[in-house]
Amino acid sequence: MTAFQDLCAHQRKVVALGQISGRLGWDQETSMPGGAGAQRGEEFAAIEAVLHQLRTDPKVGDWLSQIDPASLSEVDQSHLRLIRRSYDRNKKLPERLASELAQATSTAHAAWAAARKADDFKAFAPVLEGILALKREEAAALADGDDLYDALLDDYEPEAKAADLAAMFEALRPGLVSLRQAVLDQPAKAGVSGAFPEAQQMELALKVAQIFGYDLNRGRLDKAVHPFSSGSGNDVRITTRTEETDPFNCLYSTIHETGHACYEQNIDQAYLLTPLGSGVSMGVHESQSRIYENQIGRSRAFTGWLFGQMRDTFGDFGISNEEAFYAAVNSVRNGFIRTEADELQYNLHVMLRFDLERALIAGDLAVNDLECAWNDRFQADFGFAVDRASHGVLQDVHWSAGLFGYFPTYSLGNVYAGCLNAALRRDVPDLDADLARGDTSAATAWLTDKIHQHGSRYAPRQVIEMACGEPPSEAPLMAYLNEKFSDLYDL
Amino acid sequence: MTAFQDLCAHQRKVVALGQISGRLGWDQETSMPGGAGAQRGEEFAAIEAVLHQLRTDPKVGDWLSQIDPASLSEVDQSHLRLIRRSYDRNKKLPERLASELAQATSTAHAAWAAARKADDFKAFAPVLEGILALKREEAAALADGDDLYDALLDDYEPEAKAADLAAMFEALRPGLVSLRQAVLDQPAKAGVSGAFPEAQQMELALKVAQIFGYDLNRGRLDKAVHPFSSGSGNDVRITTRTEETDPFNCLYSTIHETGHACYEQNIDQAYLLTPLGSGVSMGVHESQSRIYENQIGRSRAFTGWLFGQMRDTFGDFGISNEEAFYAAVNSVRNGFIRTEADELQYNLHVMLRFDLERALIAGDLAVNDLECAWNDRFQADFGFAVDRASHGVLQDVHWSAGLFGYFPTYSLGNVYAGCLNAALRRDVPDLDADLARGDTSAATAWLTDKIHQHGSRYAPRQVIEMACGEPPSEAPLMAYLNEKFSDLYDL
Repeated sequence: MTAFQDLCAHQRKVVALGQISGRLGWDQETSMPGGAGAQRGEEFAAIEAVLHQLRTDPKVGDWLSQIDPASLSEVDQSHLRLIRRSYDRNKKLPERLASELAQATSTAHAAWAAARKADDFKAFAPVLEGILALKREEAAALADGDDLYDALLDDYEPEAKAADLAAMFEALRPGLVSLRQAVLDQPAKAGVSGAFPEAQQMELALKVAQIFGYDLNRGRLDKAVHPFSSGSGNDVRITTRTEETDPFNCLYSTIHETGHACYEQNIDQAYLLTPLGSGVSMGVHESQSRIYENQIGRSRAFTGWLFGQMRDTFGDFGISNEEAFYAAVNSVRNGFIRTEADELQYNLHVMLRFDLERALIAGDLAVNDLECAWNDRFQADFGFAVDRASHGVLQDVHWSAGLFGYFPTYSLGNVYAGCLNAALRRDVPDLDADLARGDTSAATAWLTDKIHQHGSRYAPRQVIEMACGEPPSEAPLMAYLNEKFSDLYDL
Repeated sequence: MTAFQDLCAHQRKVVALGQISGRLGWDQETSMPGGAGAQRGEEFAAIEAVLHQLRTDPKVGDWLSQIDPASLSEVDQSHLRLIRRSYDRNKKLPERLASELAQATSTAHAAWAAARKADDFKAFAPVLEGILALKREEAAALADGDDLYDALLDDYEPEAKAADLAAMFEALRPGLVSLRQAVLDQPAKAGVSGAFPEAQQMELALKVAQIFGYDLNRGRLDKAVHPFSSGSGNDVRITTRTEETDPFNCLYSTIHETGHACYEQNIDQAYLLTPLGSGVSMGVHESQSRIYENQIGRSRAFTGWLFGQMRDTFGDFGISNEEAFYAAVNSVRNGFIRTEADELQYNLHVMLRFDLERALIAGDLAVNDLECAWNDRFQADFGFAVDRASHGVLQDVHWSAGLFGYFPTYSLGNVYAGCLNAALRRDVPDLDADLARGDTSAATAWLTDKIHQHGSRYAPRQVIEMACGEPPSEAPLMAYLNEKFSDLYDL
């Protein structure tokens, strides 16, 4: 065996164990008995310790030093690049720090949940201080003197720079704020009414997931408290949730997770259990979930078809025609909560968090001032005041889990979805006629061809640029939102 | 940290990873999408390779050589004994052999399934030859010149010797053959009739599992093709199956697996994720599933209560009183299949396999003569001829999976259950009055106290002897069967 073959065999084991760890996470959210939590924590720690040990095995360093990239095919050079990247990052992190972070975030989760329940940010602040100190230490270890936040961001969005994202977001924000205000000055749209039995919601959700191309022979749909997609290759599972009075929660959560899952399922089978065999970044992943959910799933054409499905499934639910249904699906309303936000307001929630967490990591904002800074910014962007911490600074789990650098990838995903949608509509001009019949195959085939099949073969921005034929920018998303909501709200 | 503490920390990781591997097995049987099989195979191989590497890590040898057992508490000496045992066994197995066996049994499973479907033993024989050769090689590596079969048996039943089991079984066999014949000479008992909807079967099964002490906060019940119990400590899951016309399949499979699961759930929490924290042997494990299922679950007292539950659940099902129900539950009929056998005939099926596989491993029986030997022995013990290979030599998965040495632990478990039942009835003389009210708590508390809590703290025979106050023998089982079936069939 050559050094490269040895390296790939080793890496295959790492990827397989990573899949197992992911499956444990799925199990925890869908199947694990309530009393098994502490034992599961030790099981997770054991497999993560093995993974860390394998990822930083000195043999990997030896192999990497023996391999001449020029001797490899282009695909194998991609493998090598990703393995080297992972090795270098993991080697920089002292094992002590990784273990302290695991310990601290595990404790912090309970503290955050309790503080959120009590609407008491002060109770959580000291815990967050501890997490922040460890994350700044981690960032310093990774950054080699460069920007601390970039070092964390790189974990979720390889090669992205916070300054570039900030510029993109700042270009988007004024347009979003003014479009939002104009929409909310108009009369509100009517919503659905009545009861939507869980079994029928799940049945329709499963049908729609399959229409969007989700392969149940290599996946499954379950209920969980939080919708998510997990796994790569031939075992990619999604979850959703149901609310008796709101069928859109289940339906659009399912379409969103189907976007993530189809990305994973449609990756070239030749990349199975290799570093190329999963989605390339959180931003590109989110672009797939968002274009499925919003640009396709909430389009006038597709909702026209969906209206008939809803009537067949639930009978009369208070909406009398396709146009009113389209408006109900895309209704814009005031709200505090990011995860419940519509596609117009969602990015404002994200930008708020991005700016605050950058300031925290940079040391420009103290944890004790975070709640105040959150509330001021919320008032500025949304025009009304946060009424309690659980509706504001305590609403998200991310910071308690140490996930600094994660938030901006949500909006980057939306920006990428905007770019991809423009290119898709250009390449498939008759798409709406298909969508109006509930046929998404032209869209999903285009996304498979342009994005999914490549897995992690190209860098995130690169794969988007190849798909669109031009560098990504925020302009297509803003144009799409302006057009859609001006039309819907007669602006 | 002392060498012993280092060793225990290492071992805790091994046990935790073993639990993860077990959970993957549960997932495969209950949740895994059909198309994920090949990928799952690689995931299993990856975690098994890690486990093998950790179990044979030279550091373990170093620690073992540094530890003076005399310096340890009695419990810690048990830890040390089990870790040393595992290390010594694993070190004797060349990694090449382990990997060849994994490969061969994985291929053999499909070959066995195809041959069984085609009722064609000759198609499977060459594959079985390959497995047998590898198992004999494994046995030789483990045996150090001692008996080959004992070396394999030791994996399932530590410290047991095939010659002792053979003597025990030979003492049992004539009595079983003649009791069986006498029973079958009597008129057959009436069975149940009608349909038993799956949902109600599962509901009753879950209720009965809880009555037997199964803790759903640390477990769960699902459907699977084959009933099984998996996991230790605080995450012990069971599966069952349903047949529309036979409610006893679901019910007694559930009680059987509940016996396994309660053993695991009731082990002293101080042993969690240590080598002491799981059942000590297959034989002792089977004794728990069997005493739950048979000596308690099929007793006249308990079935009296169960009859009322069945009537409440299913209405009229063709049985009009408790005594007829007791007879139906314990009905003895001719049959080819071990897994469908009643408690009287079951051990004859096992002894047949035990004698044949001992002869195969010893080299006294050729694979090509196996089908003939099976059919001759079946005719001798059961009095009628095997009509096809799938009803005979191809019915069990075990040999295709390389599980030589496993079969006798089923009957050893029955023998142990007989011993424990005699001691239980002696210590809790009023048990039947409780059982007649559906209250098994006195029995399960006795088993928890005598067996479950100890986990792997004592050797298998030792824990049975401690519970019973005398060395185990086949006599109590034979006496119990004679009394029960003589009474039931008016002999």
